Amino acid sequence: MKNMVYIQSGGPTSVINSSLYGAYKEAIRHPEEIGHIYGSINGIEGLIEDKLFDLNEENPHDIELLIQTPGAALGTTRRKLPKDINDPVYMQIVKNLQKHKIKYVFVNGGNDSMDTCNKISILCDELNLDVRVIGVPKTIDNDLACTDHTLGYASAAKAVINQIYAISKDALCYKQGKIHIVEVMGRNAGWLTAAADLVPDDGRPDLIYLPENPFNVDEFIQDIKEIHEKKGYGIVVISEGIKFERDMTNAQVDGFGHAQLAGACTELAHIVESRLGIKTRVVELSLLQRANPFLLSRNDRDEAIEVGQLAVTSALAGETGKMIVMKRVSNEPYVARFELVSLSEVANAEQKVPEYMMQDKHRMSDKFREYLRPLIQGNIHLIWKDGIVELTNFKKKIVK
Amino acid sequence: MKNMVYIQSGGPTSVINSSLYGAYKEAIRHPEEIGHIYGSINGIEGLIEDKLFDLNEENPHDIELLIQTPGAALGTTRRKLPKDINDPVYMQIVKNLQKHKIKYVFVNGGNDSMDTCNKISILCDELNLDVRVIGVPKTIDNDLACTDHTLGYASAAKAVINQIYAISKDALCYKQGKIHIVEVMGRNAGWLTAAADLVPDDGRPDLIYLPENPFNVDEFIQDIKEIHEKKGYGIVVISEGIKFERDMTNAQVDGFGHAQLAGACTELAHIVESRLGIKTRVVELSLLQRANPFLLSRNDRDEAIEVGQLAVTSALAGETGKMIVMKRVSNEPYVARFELVSLSEVANAEQKVPEYMMQDKHRMSDKFREYLRPLIQGNIHLIWKDGIVELTNFKKKIVK
Repeated sequence: MKNMVYIQSGGPTSVINSSLYGAYKEAIRHPEEIGHIYGSINGIEGLIEDKLFDLNEENPHDIELLIQTPGAALGTTRRKLPKDINDPVYMQIVKNLQKHKIKYVFVNGGNDSMDTCNKISILCDELNLDVRVIGVPKTIDNDLACTDHTLGYASAAKAVINQIYAISKDALCYKQGKIHIVEVMGRNAGWLTAAADLVPDDGRPDLIYLPENPFNVDEFIQDIKEIHEKKGYGIVVISEGIKFERDMTNAQVDGFGHAQLAGACTELAHIVESRLGIKTRVVELSLLQRANPFLLSRNDRDEAIEVGQLAVTSALAGETGKMIVMKRVSNEPYVARFELVSLSEVANAEQKVPEYMMQDKHRMSDKFREYLRPLIQGNIHLIWKDGIVELTNFKKKIVK
Repeated sequence: MKNMVYIQSGGPTSVINSSLYGAYKEAIRHPEEIGHIYGSINGIEGLIEDKLFDLNEENPHDIELLIQTPGAALGTTRRKLPKDINDPVYMQIVKNLQKHKIKYVFVNGGNDSMDTCNKISILCDELNLDVRVIGVPKTIDNDLACTDHTLGYASAAKAVINQIYAISKDALCYKQGKIHIVEVMGRNAGWLTAAADLVPDDGRPDLIYLPENPFNVDEFIQDIKEIHEKKGYGIVVISEGIKFERDMTNAQVDGFGHAQLAGACTELAHIVESRLGIKTRVVELSLLQRANPFLLSRNDRDEAIEVGQLAVTSALAGETGKMIVMKRVSNEPYVARFELVSLSEVANAEQKVPEYMMQDKHRMSDKFREYLRPLIQGNIHLIWKDGIVELTNFKKKIVK
């Protein structure tokens, strides 16, 4: 009898635990092949430091709540594995895989995590270990290669669209309002920022700034000036990943780390206020983009569960060193097929927003709308208790 | 045949339009007494500048969506009426009341707005006009006098509790995390910040800072240091209304208005990073506290509708110069009674969090929990279209 371990890695999403749920539910259907179902505490660190816990020891209600719980229920990490395969850390991993008789390893993560996944897979191959390693894609940034989209992106996009629409009703109800600058996550790719273009007309942002396009502060100031003169208020959406020359005047007066702390938008708001004398309000959607059970896409959640299941059945079927990807077949009706690709193809690659999805510098094209719309469909009925959502809280008793 | 006008005033809430909905639905039941049902565009400004629109000219679907639409659907204002009753602005109001044959005036707002309401009422009395003025209480700050709670507070509190709980799952899933500093609205009263103490244990903030308590930066730094040493991460919740001596070093280097722009929390985060070298993340819940249809309290929404209805029936019964308040009868089951109080009692008064509701400087007492818990009960099934919530968008055709 062999066991399995599940690893969550990198920044969480609103549906990362749904994949864990799918994998768990599939695994318990195969008691003759999979014995213990371990969670690795804090990503790969759990496997290195021998900190695993048995999911069957947890309260079944906490398992059921996984499909509405954001954050990584197993704990996560940003730790990267060293390049040198002879680093002692790899021996620790192998030792713990053998100690716990683990045959199936699942790594749920983004770019960096697929690199971790790939390294474990290569290691096991080289040592001729009977271990199968499967990657489960996840990132709100939607920047993984080889897949139509990543799990977690659609729910984050739905949160961005709906939250901006909701706050637009507040932002635009004064005769003379502020310029609202909304900061959206996404380090290098603008997928999530682009979603803001799907806000209905009566709350649609005036301008959208993706990191794929060059950003010029003077042009930005001119854009803001025009909106304010025309309407008296406005909403602009800016990716946290935009790059611009920092204003030296600001940088100089800032002796205690503002530039590092404040997001791009806070800095831009300062510039708007000082150069134009226009009032601004910065709204950072922050963690409510990726940790938001109240705006889940059912489609995203269901795909996350399905991919978790498929990871287990693939490993049982003998697959290893692969990640599950989604290939879109059609938009109406929305059909996506799941496939396996080699981890080495995916690891560390990056997918940006292509030009044909942009109408111009500040607007997305119909192609983008057709791409995103099917992904955000469907709502979830959450489980509540006394006016507060119920969320998984694992006890994580470490196995000896 | 006489007409009515409805005015929304001050900062919006998630249920301000539910009171409008209640008033509208009640008014159309009395066609023999109320002819046109006007909305005043941008609060009292609409009545001054003769910018009214007829709610019966709007799409009925937009009326139905009012009960899930945040922001002020009629438009709002922060304009205060002058003290001098001989100011020409009052003559404009009287002129427009007469021009549109308005007998019923409803003002939906907070402290300042009840002052506006009171002034109109006094004016009409002095001029012997046959006009009845009724106030509908509203503010997420919950700081109005004479009432158990204000409409909009409970939904904002529910949003604060649930959003902090959700992001705690993300904030706490790293082994070595950041100190998360969550900024909550409420200028002088800590009601909304206090709500954070109802977050379940596995996400409950380590410390809560209300504006009712003196705030000392050195003590704050010491508190953060202790949490970080003990746990490696933490969540603290701070009211935007806390007062502290600004660090002169910071104030001096800041030549372009940071202090005005950045919230108290951004400034405190700078101090934590520079003094302790501990990583922080500031999460301003911002407009998602008061413009959040996804976390409405059904209880709050239903009370908002009911108070809107009651405002109309009270005016029809001959009441004027009064505001509707809620008096709690019992917690289990929750029962509140509606009463009328004189506007002069309410206008400009302020209700802070009483001491018996605090356990200590950083925790609320059971009394507070018993007070808040019934108010946040019940969820709403929203109307969606294609993965996006539907919200009211009035055309606002100005009547001649």
